[in-house]
Amino acid sequence: MPDSIPADSVGLVETQYRTFDGPLALDCGRELPGFTLAYETYGTLNDARSNALLICHALSSDQHAAGYHSMDDAKPGWWDSCIGPGKPFDTDEFFVVCPNNLGGCKGSTGPNTANPETGELYASDFPIVTVRDWVRSQKLLADALGITRWAAVAGGSLGGMQAMQWAIDYPDRLAHALLIAAAPKLSAQNIAFNEVARQAIVSDADFNGGRYYGQPAPKKGLMLARMLGHITYLSDDAMRDKFGRELKEGKLNFNFDIEFQVESYLRYQGESFTNRFDANTYLLMTRALDYFDPAADFGGDLAAAFARTAARFLVVSFTTDWRFPPARSREITRALVQAGKQVSYCTVKAHQGHDAFLMPVPQYLAVLDAYTSQILAGV
Amino acid sequence: MPDSIPADSVGLVETQYRTFDGPLALDCGRELPGFTLAYETYGTLNDARSNALLICHALSSDQHAAGYHSMDDAKPGWWDSCIGPGKPFDTDEFFVVCPNNLGGCKGSTGPNTANPETGELYASDFPIVTVRDWVRSQKLLADALGITRWAAVAGGSLGGMQAMQWAIDYPDRLAHALLIAAAPKLSAQNIAFNEVARQAIVSDADFNGGRYYGQPAPKKGLMLARMLGHITYLSDDAMRDKFGRELKEGKLNFNFDIEFQVESYLRYQGESFTNRFDANTYLLMTRALDYFDPAADFGGDLAAAFARTAARFLVVSFTTDWRFPPARSREITRALVQAGKQVSYCTVKAHQGHDAFLMPVPQYLAVLDAYTSQILAGV
Repeated sequence: MPDSIPADSVGLVETQYRTFDGPLALDCGRELPGFTLAYETYGTLNDARSNALLICHALSSDQHAAGYHSMDDAKPGWWDSCIGPGKPFDTDEFFVVCPNNLGGCKGSTGPNTANPETGELYASDFPIVTVRDWVRSQKLLADALGITRWAAVAGGSLGGMQAMQWAIDYPDRLAHALLIAAAPKLSAQNIAFNEVARQAIVSDADFNGGRYYGQPAPKKGLMLARMLGHITYLSDDAMRDKFGRELKEGKLNFNFDIEFQVESYLRYQGESFTNRFDANTYLLMTRALDYFDPAADFGGDLAAAFARTAARFLVVSFTTDWRFPPARSREITRALVQAGKQVSYCTVKAHQGHDAFLMPVPQYLAVLDAYTSQILAGV
Repeated sequence: MPDSIPADSVGLVETQYRTFDGPLALDCGRELPGFTLAYETYGTLNDARSNALLICHALSSDQHAAGYHSMDDAKPGWWDSCIGPGKPFDTDEFFVVCPNNLGGCKGSTGPNTANPETGELYASDFPIVTVRDWVRSQKLLADALGITRWAAVAGGSLGGMQAMQWAIDYPDRLAHALLIAAAPKLSAQNIAFNEVARQAIVSDADFNGGRYYGQPAPKKGLMLARMLGHITYLSDDAMRDKFGRELKEGKLNFNFDIEFQVESYLRYQGESFTNRFDANTYLLMTRALDYFDPAADFGGDLAAAFARTAARFLVVSFTTDWRFPPARSREITRALVQAGKQVSYCTVKAHQGHDAFLMPVPQYLAVLDAYTSQILAGV
């Protein structure tokens, strides 16, 4: 909890809600009869409505990208290192919008909200959603906010995939796309990790086919999923630096309780996640990741998928990211170059692994800052 | 199942058992009052008793390293690619011995066997065992078999760690140590993966504190542990080559059933593992991995730990192994060189990841074969 709000923070913020009449057609063939998006905004939309920046969130985050909800908050929003006065996504200049994705658990329509047609919680009846569905719903939010063209759409990881899809699906609705620590599609290994996470959740005796609201939630399964995810977010190096083989009590106790610091850390991360996240949403988000493959409609040719884009691109990767390594970002970059698009690419040296995209890594912030200054020059 | 036994197979084999009077003091401070080791042997011990080769198994395997138990067996023993007439561990020349480790589930004393003092199954009362404990028990087996000096002790992964410990603890009892796809100790990431696997098992509603014998076993948890393990055994490349993003039914079904081939493979691997392995043993084996750190008694100086060794060493790693990458084998090699020991080191180019140590990779077999020919010259 901050004693006082830092000067470079967006300060105290509130989630807003916008409800849309349906139906919204989804890739899976089903439709949502009507839906709500929870979102936050930071900064002020200029008169020309040309300074709006859409932030798309990743697997386990939400609309609370920056600032604090109350003076009691232990931590600010998930991308606070990048969003605020004087920061790369400078709220003195940009009007930043961050929605919670459909299927999320923080106020947007999802498994933990009621189906307006039945009045019952969706739970496991909530349809499978895709990155394209999210982009479609975000476009309706842009319409509702009177934003005809984003100065930029930006995101890390699954957020970067949404920015990529925006550039492909609505080429005239964004000037820049910032794709950070992303990939053009998941590898078999990525899908495999997601599948283990999902199996952990559905195997939990409390899962009850996804209909666990009002009952004990499948916390053990979600904890396992998060522990596993966490390993893939951190680099081997970062784990070595942070924990090594350090023992929790300085000596071995020869049991299955916590012996090593890294076990303690993972269990803590896993348990605390279950207090803020919903298992059904975790299932949906991992499936959206699995399915993402914008080249699929173009015979697997990513350059062909990018042919229609009109945005300028920034692609950023991190040296020790083994979830979506630099090679995956270079696939994106090469396809953009092949399609004749304007793209800046940077591999940032960082030891934090995939998580680096959330961290105040100086070179990373400098790259973002240089790029967003360019954007502002055109706003 | 083989139509006929291949000519280079050791053929039909049987597990043997040797029971030892205790007590056997263990690293954890407890002792086993008496214990049995299940083991298999292939080939014939020569009159000089100089051609015996000890094979140590890894996390999820057992004493059945080669050949078939019956003509109905779907597959031969786990290291059949390396053990047999004319193979690198040539059973025309060597007398090969492979025991099931203490704490195992295939006939050696472990959680699924009775405590002789109480007549009850050990279950979760079975003490934590270490690599050093295993080596201590294997030394008693060597004594019982009249083998005063192994021509070689060999193993992959956790098996390689046992070979390393043999060289340190009983320098005059082996001529060669073959350390394949091993590491001098686990990294924080390695421990983290083990911890997720253990939590998956103990979180299973059927685990019942380890006292599940005679009741439904914690199959879901063990399945998750195995699925996760499997991801770490295969390289990203191997998974891409084997599965890519191929769909099971050729199209997306938009649900949480199996969509991708890799999901199908992992679930199959996980489920079939639960039919042949015991969850309590999985807990014990992963803990033995976590604890292994022969340098710990020497102020963290691995070269000092090796100072007492008298064996010649072969160290082998595989290019795409990310569980115990080549860098970990080079740590071992460097420490041996620093200690002034004789060591041959080879990184084998293989796309299979950690699993390569079990595979008939031609360069790997050639390296082993060249080395074991050297051993034979001295037998």
